[in-house]
Amino acid sequence: MRAAIFRGGDIVVDTLPEPVPRQGQVLVKTLACGICGSDLHAAKHSHRMAAITKRIPGRVPMDPARDVVMGHEFCCEVLDYGPDTAKTVKPGARVCAMPIMIEADGPKGMGYSNTYMGGYAERMLLAAPLLLEVPNGLSTDHAALTEPLAVGVHAVEKAALKGDEAPLVIGCGPVGLAVIAALRLKNIRPIVAADFSPKRRELAVKMGADIVIDPAKEPPYARLAADRRAAVFECVGVPGILQQMFEAVPRDARVIVVGVCMEPDTIEPMFGIVKELSLQFVLGYTPEEFARSLRLLADGEVDAASLITAKVGLEGVKGAFQALGNPEHHTKIVVEPWR
Amino acid sequence: MRAAIFRGGDIVVDTLPEPVPRQGQVLVKTLACGICGSDLHAAKHSHRMAAITKRIPGRVPMDPARDVVMGHEFCCEVLDYGPDTAKTVKPGARVCAMPIMIEADGPKGMGYSNTYMGGYAERMLLAAPLLLEVPNGLSTDHAALTEPLAVGVHAVEKAALKGDEAPLVIGCGPVGLAVIAALRLKNIRPIVAADFSPKRRELAVKMGADIVIDPAKEPPYARLAADRRAAVFECVGVPGILQQMFEAVPRDARVIVVGVCMEPDTIEPMFGIVKELSLQFVLGYTPEEFARSLRLLADGEVDAASLITAKVGLEGVKGAFQALGNPEHHTKIVVEPWR
Repeated sequence: MRAAIFRGGDIVVDTLPEPVPRQGQVLVKTLACGICGSDLHAAKHSHRMAAITKRIPGRVPMDPARDVVMGHEFCCEVLDYGPDTAKTVKPGARVCAMPIMIEADGPKGMGYSNTYMGGYAERMLLAAPLLLEVPNGLSTDHAALTEPLAVGVHAVEKAALKGDEAPLVIGCGPVGLAVIAALRLKNIRPIVAADFSPKRRELAVKMGADIVIDPAKEPPYARLAADRRAAVFECVGVPGILQQMFEAVPRDARVIVVGVCMEPDTIEPMFGIVKELSLQFVLGYTPEEFARSLRLLADGEVDAASLITAKVGLEGVKGAFQALGNPEHHTKIVVEPWR
Repeated sequence: MRAAIFRGGDIVVDTLPEPVPRQGQVLVKTLACGICGSDLHAAKHSHRMAAITKRIPGRVPMDPARDVVMGHEFCCEVLDYGPDTAKTVKPGARVCAMPIMIEADGPKGMGYSNTYMGGYAERMLLAAPLLLEVPNGLSTDHAALTEPLAVGVHAVEKAALKGDEAPLVIGCGPVGLAVIAALRLKNIRPIVAADFSPKRRELAVKMGADIVIDPAKEPPYARLAADRRAAVFECVGVPGILQQMFEAVPRDARVIVVGVCMEPDTIEPMFGIVKELSLQFVLGYTPEEFARSLRLLADGEVDAASLITAKVGLEGVKGAFQALGNPEHHTKIVVEPWR
């Protein structure tokens, strides 16, 4: 089968052996797979990512010297099951699933691995117990947004907001937009959102932001209600942003770190101390949150159409990685490997 | 009056003008004043402390080029009130108070200021509304422990532990010991505590630790109950300790940062992200927590006697600052300026 492969620091389209499902696995046809910002980061800093993953117990780092097929935001069609595997969803049906393979020694992440291939390939393997059938009426490319939406849903859940906080979202890329959508669904308002890009601020409004701010013109923190506790979602994930927030957020603020910063970062704890800040780092989602995100999309609760700015085949993956660098041009590019 | 003055990077005993209480202020005789680790830090890194304080809105930095009288853990005797000031406590009575002066434009900290002198002086000024009379039967030097105990009480309150967490205290200096005492009073057990010093581990047991660990011999995190959420109190406050904890604490741990690190610090957010850690920075205490700490000492709920390892006069302050560097020799040295 054909795949867009991260190989030797580049992305190339080549042929890989056909995946064969083992017990508990399902062979699927990849219908649509969104490109995540973490994929761009992993491609750019593959050695750094491997080095830090190696230091985290229980994680198997990808070896950038060997082939990797990325892609963990997918909607697929069921083709075939492995031996002795309950056929919970019938072949031909469309499914989403958490990008996790279940092994005897624990779950393994897909897409940043030399073993567990992601969705930038014509076919892939999923864990049979994780299949969620896509409800009728939900388009395939919108269903592929389940994973990034779940990231926002989880961040808002994990923040355990009581509803009387003043939410502020810093960074309106796909992660920030998902957080905004999740905040709106919980009706925690007014939602303030900040991004340097006019296009992203426009999308923030579509997702449910009440107030959007260009940080080049106005400090976003000044727009927070003074009588409510600030809940600031960090959705940028680059070194320096934490310290910037330490200095700028109001006293007693809660900072929810959703952005994935893979580099070392320097902070001045004194600002956190004097303001008695709290930080909650978040990652991923629970199976319940993932399933809920699919339902929210199916129920039309999120303006999915606005998020998808382009669709490409496997040959277009490399160009899409480059194009995603410009926030004015693209939000989510969906790969359709069957094209 | 005489005072031990931080002057030109040194501590010297000299004469200062007699303080005169204004409206809302009380003139008191300093009976006892504990030396805090932050005083040592402020003396050693006075320029750095001034520089960072300058960047925190609403804070007035001390100018290390001018005289500073430190000391914010005091028990005093009421001498006289300023004009038009309600005499809530009668002259001759012993009092404790939060080390804060109330001004029209907001509260001002005492002890790290060129204006608001602390307790290493024969007499000082307190804010009249903050006076708390020391209950009969509580010794003066134990009453002076109210402030450091309140730091621990506040840290445990702010952590909002539910009682089913597994607490671990990293660092058993005065701050860590106060946290242990506060955890024990809330009966959140077993309390695990770690310190390289045998003397401090011994004190940790006296304060209520159930398990003490020498980190040179055993990783403290291994002794946490696996089925309960870890609540780890960082009571060291030096660069590097946060990253050490990021790498060592279990998944979903809560880190309560009680140590006061005044230098920039480098962390790798990825560890926080992958483990979904939460951090709560804490500082100071509320008036209620301060008053409660005084009552706890009066009720004999904390083994105060074990904490005080020496008493000195003003001439002994300089030597005490040096001696406190060795954790085997001293925990809390109390200054008695009237000696």
